[in-house]
Amino acid sequence: MMELVPGSSLITKTPEEGPALALMLARHSIHEIQPDMVVLKAGRSKYSTDPDSLIAASQVVAIEFATIAAANNYWR
Amino acid sequence: MMELVPGSSLITKTPEEGPALALMLARHSIHEIQPDMVVLKAGRSKYSTDPDSLIAASQVVAIEFATIAAANNYWR
Amino acid sequence: MMELVPGSSLITKTPEEGPALALMLARHSIHEIQPDMVVLKAGRSKYSTDPDSLIAASQVVAIEFATIAAANNYWR
Amino acid sequence: MMELVPGSSLITKTPEEGPALALMLARHSIHEIQPDMVVLKAGRSKYSTDPDSLIAASQVVAIEFATIAAANNYWR
Amino acid sequence: MMELVPGSSLITKTPEEGPALALMLARHSIHEIQPDMVVLKAGRSKYSTDPDSLIAASQVVAIEFATIAAANNYWR
Amino acid sequence: MMELVPGSSLITKTPEEGPALALMLARHSIHEIQPDMVVLKAGRSKYSTDPDSLIAASQVVAIEFATIAAANNYWR
Repeated sequence: MMELVPGSSLITKTPEEGPALALMLARHSIHEIQPDMVVLKAGRSKYSTDPDSLIAASQVVAIEFATIAAANNYWR
Repeated sequence: MMELVPGSSLITKTPEEGPALALMLARHSIHEIQPDMVVLKAGRSKYSTDPDSLIAASQVVAIEFATIAAANNYWR
Repeated sequence: MMELVPGSSLITKTPEEGPALALMLARHSIHEIQPDMVVLKAGRSKYSTDPDSLIAASQVVAIEFATIAAANNYWR
Repeated sequence: MMELVPGSSLITKTPEEGPALALMLARHSIHEIQPDMVVLKAGRSKYSTDPDSLIAASQVVAIEFATIAAANNYWR
Repeated sequence: MMELVPGSSLITKTPEEGPALALMLARHSIHEIQPDMVVLKAGRSKYSTDPDSLIAASQVVAIEFATIAAANNYWR
Repeated sequence: MMELVPGSSLITKTPEEGPALALMLARHSIHEIQPDMVVLKAGRSKYSTDPDSLIAASQVVAIEFATIAAANNYWR
């Protein structure tokens, strides 16, 4: 689940890759704070079935996506 | 409920499409984190009737909308 | 309570209209997620009397207002 | 507590007025959502003594302040 | 704990002063909402030992810091 | 855990260093609010095993990262 940021860029080829990179950055942060995969996997059953946790997680992704979109000049 | 981002652009023809795309991006993120539609539908009865969950969800949409509005140069 | 975004613009004539449009956008998002007005009205007695819910709601409005203010070049 | 936004501008003469206007905008939003001053005053004893509520309120002010600071070109 | 914003500027001499000013702005907001130092000090034992409160507080600081960093053109 | 911001710059050599600096800034803020390392370490067992706390922490990092990415002109 917790992959490192691939390559060394916020630039993506297509807009579709933006949300995927945003999610990766969010997961990367969580992995940095809690590197123990056993703990992270234990938590997944909780947050992935709780709507409020999912909404909170999607907010982090939205913030990372805003950064990525700006980096890519909004793929205009 | 969880459609993929249509086309490959943050650009919308009209401002009215902005909030709709923002909601779609938010749902897309949640779908990426929890792909199981049965789980997602089970959670809907909870978050869609809880004002605090709805407020939280609308915050995610507001963040995505900010990105989309900037991408569209605010439809000026 | 949940009106559609009027006109097709984030541009307002005066700064005073900015917060009103921000609130309308926030309500519009919630209405999109939960279109059932009976459910929305049932929740109002809860969130509108709970300070934490009101603070959370005002945060969504603040985020929408940031977008609207930028769109209007801050009414400079 | 809930005054209307004074004048029709986000521009302040000094940076010190920025946080004050930010707080006023936040309060204005809450007042728009819940216009009943009796309800608002009833809630004050709760949120104004709860650190988490105060932190949440200060976050709304911080978001409004970001908008005001940008409007004033950061008082450079 | 709650000092007023010193000087009348968001400009700092060094980047290190940025986070300090951000914290001061956040505290200033809380002080504006709750001026009673006895109440504020009473709450400190709660929020300063609760990780979730500390994370929430650091988020407010991060938002204020974003504004300060932009004001300083990121100390480039 | 709570190191001071190294050097005096938001500029990083590579994008990979961006998230690391963002995490450092977030930790620095928390350390400023609660300097007692014993208290901070006592809280770690709670927040580092609670998915919602981890999501909240990753949100702070995302906000700091947005600032750092802008400072670095998105490493374009």
